[in-house]
Amino acid sequence: MCLSGTLEDKLDAASAAGFDGVEVFEPDLVASPWSPAELAARCADLGLSIDLYQPFRDLDSTDPDRFARNLRRAEAKFDVMAALGVDTVLVCSSVAHDAVEDADRLAEQLATAAGRAHERGLRIAYEALAWGRHVSTWERSWDTVRRADSPALGLCLDSFHVLSRGGDPAGFAAVPAEKLFFLQLADAPRLDMDVLQWSRHHRLFPGQGAFDLPGFLGAVLAAGYAGPLSLEVFNDVYRQADPARTAVDAMRSLRWLEEALALRRPDAGLPLPPAAPALSGWSFTELAVDGASGPQLAAVLGALGFTHTGQHRSKPVQLWEQGTARVLLNAFDTRADAVRPSGPGVASVAALGLESADPGRSAARAEAMCAPVLPRTRGAAEAQLSAVAAPDGTQVFFTRTGPDGWPADFLSTGERPGPGAGITGVDHVSLTQPFDAFDEAGLFYRAVLGLEPQEVTELAAPFGLVRTRAVTGPDRAVRLALSVSALRRGGWAPGVPEPQSIALATDDVVATARALRAAGAPLLPVPANYTDDLAARVDLPEELLAAVREHGLMYEQDAHGGYLHLATDVLGDRVFFEVVQRLDGYDGYGTTDAPVRMAAHRRRRQATTSGRR
Amino acid sequence: MCLSGTLEDKLDAASAAGFDGVEVFEPDLVASPWSPAELAARCADLGLSIDLYQPFRDLDSTDPDRFARNLRRAEAKFDVMAALGVDTVLVCSSVAHDAVEDADRLAEQLATAAGRAHERGLRIAYEALAWGRHVSTWERSWDTVRRADSPALGLCLDSFHVLSRGGDPAGFAAVPAEKLFFLQLADAPRLDMDVLQWSRHHRLFPGQGAFDLPGFLGAVLAAGYAGPLSLEVFNDVYRQADPARTAVDAMRSLRWLEEALALRRPDAGLPLPPAAPALSGWSFTELAVDGASGPQLAAVLGALGFTHTGQHRSKPVQLWEQGTARVLLNAFDTRADAVRPSGPGVASVAALGLESADPGRSAARAEAMCAPVLPRTRGAAEAQLSAVAAPDGTQVFFTRTGPDGWPADFLSTGERPGPGAGITGVDHVSLTQPFDAFDEAGLFYRAVLGLEPQEVTELAAPFGLVRTRAVTGPDRAVRLALSVSALRRGGWAPGVPEPQSIALATDDVVATARALRAAGAPLLPVPANYTDDLAARVDLPEELLAAVREHGLMYEQDAHGGYLHLATDVLGDRVFFEVVQRLDGYDGYGTTDAPVRMAAHRRRRQATTSGRR
Repeated sequence: MCLSGTLEDKLDAASAAGFDGVEVFEPDLVASPWSPAELAARCADLGLSIDLYQPFRDLDSTDPDRFARNLRRAEAKFDVMAALGVDTVLVCSSVAHDAVEDADRLAEQLATAAGRAHERGLRIAYEALAWGRHVSTWERSWDTVRRADSPALGLCLDSFHVLSRGGDPAGFAAVPAEKLFFLQLADAPRLDMDVLQWSRHHRLFPGQGAFDLPGFLGAVLAAGYAGPLSLEVFNDVYRQADPARTAVDAMRSLRWLEEALALRRPDAGLPLPPAAPALSGWSFTELAVDGASGPQLAAVLGALGFTHTGQHRSKPVQLWEQGTARVLLNAFDTRADAVRPSGPGVASVAALGLESADPGRSAARAEAMCAPVLPRTRGAAEAQLSAVAAPDGTQVFFTRTGPDGWPADFLSTGERPGPGAGITGVDHVSLTQPFDAFDEAGLFYRAVLGLEPQEVTELAAPFGLVRTRAVTGPDRAVRLALSVSALRRGGWAPGVPEPQSIALATDDVVATARALRAAGAPLLPVPANYTDDLAARVDLPEELLAAVREHGLMYEQDAHGGYLHLATDVLGDRVFFEVVQRLDGYDGYGTTDAPVRMAAHRRRRQATTSGRR
Repeated sequence: MCLSGTLEDKLDAASAAGFDGVEVFEPDLVASPWSPAELAARCADLGLSIDLYQPFRDLDSTDPDRFARNLRRAEAKFDVMAALGVDTVLVCSSVAHDAVEDADRLAEQLATAAGRAHERGLRIAYEALAWGRHVSTWERSWDTVRRADSPALGLCLDSFHVLSRGGDPAGFAAVPAEKLFFLQLADAPRLDMDVLQWSRHHRLFPGQGAFDLPGFLGAVLAAGYAGPLSLEVFNDVYRQADPARTAVDAMRSLRWLEEALALRRPDAGLPLPPAAPALSGWSFTELAVDGASGPQLAAVLGALGFTHTGQHRSKPVQLWEQGTARVLLNAFDTRADAVRPSGPGVASVAALGLESADPGRSAARAEAMCAPVLPRTRGAAEAQLSAVAAPDGTQVFFTRTGPDGWPADFLSTGERPGPGAGITGVDHVSLTQPFDAFDEAGLFYRAVLGLEPQEVTELAAPFGLVRTRAVTGPDRAVRLALSVSALRRGGWAPGVPEPQSIALATDDVVATARALRAAGAPLLPVPANYTDDLAARVDLPEELLAAVREHGLMYEQDAHGGYLHLATDVLGDRVFFEVVQRLDGYDGYGTTDAPVRMAAHRRRRQATTSGRR
């Protein structure tokens, strides 16, 4: 149930992502035209074992007739299992009104069922659902298995059911290894809601949520479990996403989990992928532009104080520099003009260059963590660049900025960087994610690049809820702000549907704003109401408040300090620049002010569009 | 916050839908380029009063310095209110860690703030948030207002905050009318989750949820409240939907609420819209077909036992009949062939004809309930037909089937209905709703047509979660099954993205299935695994089980009885027929079996597509 589609789709996706086996969930089989034997043959062809069958719920019953009927149904399912060639069946603790409460009677019924299974060479893995009627903790399920004392009855442990209730995996050590029949893994965000709804809609792959999965897995392995690691992730987004992608995401989560556990237990001899080299900063940010947006972007970069210092040896790519900020303009397709003669032009963040201590190892790490490594055409005398594709399609390059690194691909224009506008480098890049890719992206940047995902925050933006999450490197030398529309879709998504921004750092945003204004940079106007409210909310020094008002700055605070920032208009169809100054260790991304900025961008886009008509 | 967009968008939408006034929520004002005076002028132009201003939270504080700062901020907001020309400001019970717990101290702080407001001719409406730190019930907020004893301090009542905590509106009677300053209305579904999340994401307009809004409003009015009825609906879907549509939906909810209250209190002299005439059944279902799908649909109708009995006088519309089931095929656009030479053709449910006791009154009712009445071209000697557009665009006609009704528009083909296949009429029509329109549709069918919305159920379908809800008429003579994809969007939505079906009733589905098979109807195959599982789950009579297996039927049960059903292939791009037999008062729509049907439809569509390539 991690994967969307029919059984056929799911098996193809699991096999392609490199899984060794699957659980079969009955609804998929029931809806399949394959007989159980045909399904077994298809799995064998795909290199997949069938490790568990999940046919039903609510086996035990206080009503003897009903229990007898349930046993008959179990026998029918044992026939299916024989044809599938699977030896373990999952039985969850009952949630029905007729669930057995008495511990001995429950154990007796499970022992009866396990006896029937045993005669067929099968076994039952018993699992406590967190919302089971009488059995809702793993301790209670273990008590039941112990009492039943049947060789064909053991435990299925599920990290969600244990950790969602604050259960302690340390107790697994008391369970004999041969009673640990199966292990299901799922992570989840911390949510204050009914545990059944939490479980059914919001589970995540290991490394995407808030649970300590390495600790959980470590405890299960230490107890002697040697079976498959199965992912059981009920998630509304994955249910409807491309299963091939989700399966790769799932495999990445297991690779991440394996490494996290290996790092905690160096003595366990678990294999380690190449460690992620430290990323010490931004080497470049590349914008793909067309014939309409390219000249506009070049003019704006000039007004922002950048200098056009280089031209690529073999491609239509310009290098613009100021401080350590380097922006590439890649004229990917000038024919787009012909198609959209009056539109704003197309521009987007196409690539991120990240400074790696060891680019080759970064690429090897990325490959080990299931990142798609990109093929790259390379001219003579050009530097070898390794790149991977992020979930939103952005290319991520691992670079070294030096005479023998990527700058060698650029011929000097002869222009030397001028005094500029006080921009010192890139503070962060903000990328709107495709709806299906938000949680995938958090794990991608964590596992592949070694960045640390921060809290997810939700934002009531003018055109719908937006979720944001930053991923950051050590010392915040690399910061990426990821966002996603919680529900918004096409049709009535006016203005700038999936904006991206490059936030440039300055040590004196007032001086930089003054220089930008003098140079005619297209700065986004901030409403006077905003500044009036700011004055009423925050005790800012008079002089600073005057500057905020004069230069159309925005200001917000977090627990550490303040954040002064401004934005440009949207350039092309979706890109804008920000100029930001962090005070006293402010660690956010201007999220509180974002709705004001979004409304202003919308208004400017409306004005431009109606002007053009 | 009911409406998506910038302040400008929201005001336009509220005015166009006929609202008299609005609340202004500070974030909208802060993001607006209009000064408060300009906003007031704009509202006046649009015929909107500003009835309340919502500038801030957490006024009271145990920290005297912080309270002093909050008062200063309040004074700044009083300036804004003066410019807006609004006299009432909302203050919610504090949720902050420094909220005042002591009842007298809290009353004293609110009295101080109210005194400042009073000097400016303003007043404060104090509201208990259901998750307020110390004040979370309306009784506690009233206790505070009573203690403060300030003429400028009164209550704001919010139906969500009262009803979500199981509060009793009967107590409002004890509050003097002059202390009821403001009323906010919101409905909500019953959800077992944190009340803050419930409130922020899942509120609904009155009539869309599970709360007794007529009872609540009745209690407030009986206590003497005579101010505005304000809708405060935080809802993730409405936040991102077309605000013009949402505003009409909102106005419809108030019309429905007014009527519901008037019916409960006939003595109150509230105005009543024309009552909804009883709908006694389906007169016709109209399918829009193109040159590719039209001949296919006609052939399938023939195989289902229908007879082509009539041809429209002036339009390319065929009438097909069997029992009381009447299907119209409207060849809306045969040019589509040229565009999609190899595709499956376009077909969709374009119109529903509902038999009304008084079609004219049905139309008047629809207009009173804000339904868009459709213009209609009409030839000589053709019947007057009144139609409105449902939220998904389907046209709903109010008809009388008789010699002087709509059948008079059809010339006889001379063919008489034959023995048919045992189909007696239409059981229900299933329509997939656009994502934004699901809750709107429930209220539309309830308020406009007088149908009764049933429970919303959720279904784990192969390509994502699906929510379904039926709306039904008296004696179930009219049943509509509405569904919506909970998250699915374009891109990876294979097969049949937004299916529609016409479910035909039979008294003997086995005999009908036999006739259909003999006539070569394109019946959807049901996997053998499904029937094997059914046999293990349900004790069906041997003979019936054999027939289920032979004819590819499906069977499910509810608390009342059983449901035998089959489906055809998808015809054109999204329409299929079902044949259904209800046993012993079964009252559902085959939802449990739907995933099997969806997977089978997907598989057939894949086979057709690959066969065509």
